[in-house]
Amino acid sequence: MPSSLKIEARDPKSRARAGTLKLAHGTVQTPAFVPLATKGTVKGLEPREVAALGFEMVLGNTFHLFLTPGHELVAKFGGLHEFMRWDGPIITDSGGFQVFSMGHGTVADEIKGRAAKGADRRGAIIEIEEDGVRFRSYVDGSERFLSPETSMEVQAALGSDIALVFDECTPFNVSRDYTAASTERTHRWLERCLSWHENNGPRDGDGNSRQLVYGIIQGGVHEELRRASAQVIAASRAGGIAIGGSLGENKDQMYEVVDWAVDELPEDRPRHLLGIGDVDDLIRGVELGIDTFDCAMPTRLGRHGMALVPDPEGRWRVNLAAARFADDRETILEGCPCPACSQGFSRGYLRYLLRSHELTGMRLVTLHNLSFVARLMQDLRSAIHRGTLAATATALRGGAAPGALSGPERA
Amino acid sequence: MPSSLKIEARDPKSRARAGTLKLAHGTVQTPAFVPLATKGTVKGLEPREVAALGFEMVLGNTFHLFLTPGHELVAKFGGLHEFMRWDGPIITDSGGFQVFSMGHGTVADEIKGRAAKGADRRGAIIEIEEDGVRFRSYVDGSERFLSPETSMEVQAALGSDIALVFDECTPFNVSRDYTAASTERTHRWLERCLSWHENNGPRDGDGNSRQLVYGIIQGGVHEELRRASAQVIAASRAGGIAIGGSLGENKDQMYEVVDWAVDELPEDRPRHLLGIGDVDDLIRGVELGIDTFDCAMPTRLGRHGMALVPDPEGRWRVNLAAARFADDRETILEGCPCPACSQGFSRGYLRYLLRSHELTGMRLVTLHNLSFVARLMQDLRSAIHRGTLAATATALRGGAAPGALSGPERA
Repeated sequence: MPSSLKIEARDPKSRARAGTLKLAHGTVQTPAFVPLATKGTVKGLEPREVAALGFEMVLGNTFHLFLTPGHELVAKFGGLHEFMRWDGPIITDSGGFQVFSMGHGTVADEIKGRAAKGADRRGAIIEIEEDGVRFRSYVDGSERFLSPETSMEVQAALGSDIALVFDECTPFNVSRDYTAASTERTHRWLERCLSWHENNGPRDGDGNSRQLVYGIIQGGVHEELRRASAQVIAASRAGGIAIGGSLGENKDQMYEVVDWAVDELPEDRPRHLLGIGDVDDLIRGVELGIDTFDCAMPTRLGRHGMALVPDPEGRWRVNLAAARFADDRETILEGCPCPACSQGFSRGYLRYLLRSHELTGMRLVTLHNLSFVARLMQDLRSAIHRGTLAATATALRGGAAPGALSGPERA
Repeated sequence: MPSSLKIEARDPKSRARAGTLKLAHGTVQTPAFVPLATKGTVKGLEPREVAALGFEMVLGNTFHLFLTPGHELVAKFGGLHEFMRWDGPIITDSGGFQVFSMGHGTVADEIKGRAAKGADRRGAIIEIEEDGVRFRSYVDGSERFLSPETSMEVQAALGSDIALVFDECTPFNVSRDYTAASTERTHRWLERCLSWHENNGPRDGDGNSRQLVYGIIQGGVHEELRRASAQVIAASRAGGIAIGGSLGENKDQMYEVVDWAVDELPEDRPRHLLGIGDVDDLIRGVELGIDTFDCAMPTRLGRHGMALVPDPEGRWRVNLAAARFADDRETILEGCPCPACSQGFSRGYLRYLLRSHELTGMRLVTLHNLSFVARLMQDLRSAIHRGTLAATATALRGGAAPGALSGPERA
């Protein structure tokens, strides 16, 4: 498959690159953040709102959409784009992460490298075998089965622009041997996914594929396993490459693991970092050569009343429900063009709405957070094009508000 | 107080009238529906969205805002308009309805004339006395007190364009004697509200009142009590007149009770029907001479997945969560200009969102319902101006879609 990524600028001091990712439903300026539309909607928002914030792609989830409403139903509507009324590119996660999280712990546990807590589990794994994973649906308790082939079949029915291969998301708290064996299986599953896709994947009238498939690098936090996995994916016929699995127990380890992986990758294929989206991680990820990111963080934090703000101390967030905001008449962030700030909703009002569990409050903070991340990514893209990434990254880390730094997108 | 209502057209065959209600924060074309912003937000929507649907006034609730965040806090923000960022007119309910509902049953029970169910009660009444009502807050369990004076004080602090007097919302299942005594107290409280307001109500720089006070007609379902109460309110210094309390156990009784009340009212003062907003009730209410209506119905139904639709059989609603919509690719209502229908969201997609408890689904149906009611009211106003109300009402009752009938607003 020919590369869909056109690299237009490179940062001289890091691996960062900026370009255009051409997909069946349009192009994505990279590096880019991809908001989650896990269940076929960016929670609380209309597609036009997501687009207006500056996002060009969203991520739908195979696991959840497979369980409800079901990919056959979505296909009846003409695919996920038509179903959810988003006409730009869509990436679909393969479901591997969610399926294995049921066995290993929650999504957050996985990302953070925490031990699994039974109470947080959704559904249950019945059996993991070479063919695939049998599990119990959290929707209706029925027994379901996902394999490399069924995951690709679901993603074909959804009609996403980018499909991810079905992988075992190797947990953090396992031995090196388990990680090695698990990574090997992910590699075998990669081949099955690519074969299925080559024979059955969505094509246009001229027989050209309408779906780019990304392989997923596993290998845990073991350097030689990560590098070997990256080499396997890089040598495969996958059109793009994602970095998955547990990336360590702290940010430094995560950056190191990502660096090992990217070190083994060719320049020409797009790179996606799965499930990472903290503000500092986005800046560092771009420097490490990542093209796209997805994460629940901006939207999930928003629903819980945590607003993204510039912060030289690196927390990048403030809890709007805190008592100190009760009579605060300022907006979340001065000069911020998001719907919450630009319309003058005060921190005090937002605090009140959040504490009253009003949907309006959750929505306004979600809009602010996504707007913040959109402008951050725009700053980073713009800086790469202008050859000023180091200065921009330093300014952002020092507490500069995103958006203030953006010149024209292209130099 | 000089009348703020300018009647511009009258229907020759009913009591319906159309005009302009001039208030401190702007004018309202009447007859009009007033969406609820009970706790300082129309649930899930931004003010600009409510305005874009065609609404010119919203209703905030004194009881809820008194308990949290508190009127003193709202006043620090410059009043409710500034707090919630709605710059058009606001009407505030007095809190009487909510306070007495704690003793008598829920809001819905009251409206429908059903007996109180303990489990649905919010907070608890500690004591009803001539001075006011002592009750326990549902927010924090603290003991609170509302009286005619405190209600007016709260509404002055909120800075609403229209304040309602503090009344006893007489329950349905009480004796005629209780109703008579309760209505008498409401009349005594009216005087106290008007006196407080004349001495302390919000005024502009020239000393003119910036808040119109509406008296509330009670009297239950007893003709002579209703008529007598209407006469008392009409003879008072109240600038507008609301019809409150239990209006009966069915729609025919409600229309009869409203008719008795309006029969006693002067033409020159604006009339508000409290808590009524079913589609058929809006049509009939306009014919009965009502100028403004408020009701939780369109927004509450929306959050529960019930969408308003034309219906010659008079139900006017459809449950989008029903299984029959699972693969339905049509929008809620063909040709509907609301954000849900005009963007092509299908019934099948909305059903899926609603069953998945996604906020986006609740919001889209809420937007549809409010849009439906806005266009219905526009049709009725337009018809009065053109002298065609009877035909328009017949067409709407026969299943015509609102909006199809509207010519220019003015003849």
